[in-house]
Amino acid sequence: MPLKNRKKCASVAIVGLGLLGSSLGKALKNKGYRRLGWTRKKALRKKAVSEDIVDECPDSLNDILARSDITVLCLPIPQIIAYAISRAAFFKKGSVVTDIGSVKEIICRTLVPELKKYGVEFIGSHPMAGTEKSGMDAAFRELYDSASVFITPDDNAPPKAVAAIKKLWESINTRTVRISPKEHDLLVASSSHLPHIVSMALTHAVLGCEDKTRKMRYAACAGGFKDTSRISSSSPLMWREIIQHNRRPVLNAMRDFEKRLKNIREHIEAENYDALQQKFALGKKLRDDWIKSGKA
Amino acid sequence: MPLKNRKKCASVAIVGLGLLGSSLGKALKNKGYRRLGWTRKKALRKKAVSEDIVDECPDSLNDILARSDITVLCLPIPQIIAYAISRAAFFKKGSVVTDIGSVKEIICRTLVPELKKYGVEFIGSHPMAGTEKSGMDAAFRELYDSASVFITPDDNAPPKAVAAIKKLWESINTRTVRISPKEHDLLVASSSHLPHIVSMALTHAVLGCEDKTRKMRYAACAGGFKDTSRISSSSPLMWREIIQHNRRPVLNAMRDFEKRLKNIREHIEAENYDALQQKFALGKKLRDDWIKSGKA
Repeated sequence: MPLKNRKKCASVAIVGLGLLGSSLGKALKNKGYRRLGWTRKKALRKKAVSEDIVDECPDSLNDILARSDITVLCLPIPQIIAYAISRAAFFKKGSVVTDIGSVKEIICRTLVPELKKYGVEFIGSHPMAGTEKSGMDAAFRELYDSASVFITPDDNAPPKAVAAIKKLWESINTRTVRISPKEHDLLVASSSHLPHIVSMALTHAVLGCEDKTRKMRYAACAGGFKDTSRISSSSPLMWREIIQHNRRPVLNAMRDFEKRLKNIREHIEAENYDALQQKFALGKKLRDDWIKSGKA
Repeated sequence: MPLKNRKKCASVAIVGLGLLGSSLGKALKNKGYRRLGWTRKKALRKKAVSEDIVDECPDSLNDILARSDITVLCLPIPQIIAYAISRAAFFKKGSVVTDIGSVKEIICRTLVPELKKYGVEFIGSHPMAGTEKSGMDAAFRELYDSASVFITPDDNAPPKAVAAIKKLWESINTRTVRISPKEHDLLVASSSHLPHIVSMALTHAVLGCEDKTRKMRYAACAGGFKDTSRISSSSPLMWREIIQHNRRPVLNAMRDFEKRLKNIREHIEAENYDALQQKFALGKKLRDDWIKSGKA
């Protein structure tokens, strides 16, 4: 970037350079931001610069925070909270901090008042993007393309701070949706957390058997199981933490799902195949309508 | 095909030109078989020839059956049984009939003795291939590439007939696995039928809500739900018939899955997150091992 343009550029700190942080760095290239990155391991900091994931990756996190107009915490949920609290005094005054965590209520409830003490705004974000993989090597520039990003500002959040976060996400071709942290957590309990649990339980049911049987099951698993089970390959620790921090909505979503499944089983037990076919037909319609909506 | 080679060629009748039948026709091109096709609609018979899905598609099914060394019934389960019984006298004597049905016990138990009366062998097949789409237009030559194909001959089936069916499937780059019809049905109840029911129930749980909520859910659905729900878009009638004809194994697979899911829910209720993480870790290991095996 030519020196004369540097001053106009807002600086964005990306803290954590795993799949989401590194993909964000790649996506933000040439979008009008100075990209500062940080991750714990020195070797990865070097790599992030040499692979053009960020523009610079200094050793001191506090220095980066002090220089950044926007900070994006691309960390696991417990670290989002721990880092923001322990570094609260180091963020640039008047800057905005956001995150990419899959739950929002616990994060926003904790961090909004905590950072306000230091003249820093916290606005929660949750981009609906990811794969079953983790780490810098799994990152790619298009990860966020056309994704929805929930932003969950406090009612008292300054419009300028909200606008800065909205602009950041929209610069990388996402659609932002404003929602309260509580509504967000209810929504993703169904649309994201439940599918991860169901996929994991399904993988146990299909492949969690004796070695000899498993070899035969391998031959009997085709594209249907491959896709329904894909997200079972996600990080166990990350998903433990997500569920842990969204316990009640997840439990409600699970109970609702279990009821629906029981109801389908009872139709099969009763040999009520017309009702079963109607269930399949409704499932098809619901999914086909979603695909046709262009939002999928 | 040059005329002088025609006599050496075994003739294969493909009865039913939907996704599986038409893809089989495309895959069998230049594999050393004369491809005869048949489907109910005259317009589709013309199209099947003009698009080189089969070599010929005469109007009379009985004529085709009389000329074919191998017949593959690419029809829904009830029609596989109905067509084979009603046309039993028309198959070429000494020929072998197979199918592509997703259940094998009811089909083999009915058709093996029925066709033997006419000097015709029935050997059940089930290729583990398909997509959520249906019909000739959804067909493609690579559908069967690297798929497993279960073949379920009777203990008394002549080795020559078994070899002919094995050779047919292996000519299109599939791996055949010999198994009894009963074992087959148990296996696919877990690996295929359960995922279809679970995927459908999950789609209901995520998108089966009020219109207003559904619009927000659209924004909250990402790649995870897209993949876990894909097979919900499959044919409702086809899946009704599959479940109907494999009722007991499917019910057992469902009950086992429900227990596993309940057990996971109880860990979350008890806030036993170490146990939850172990469940996620085992799911990941089971799926990653399958992917690494090269059988996925």
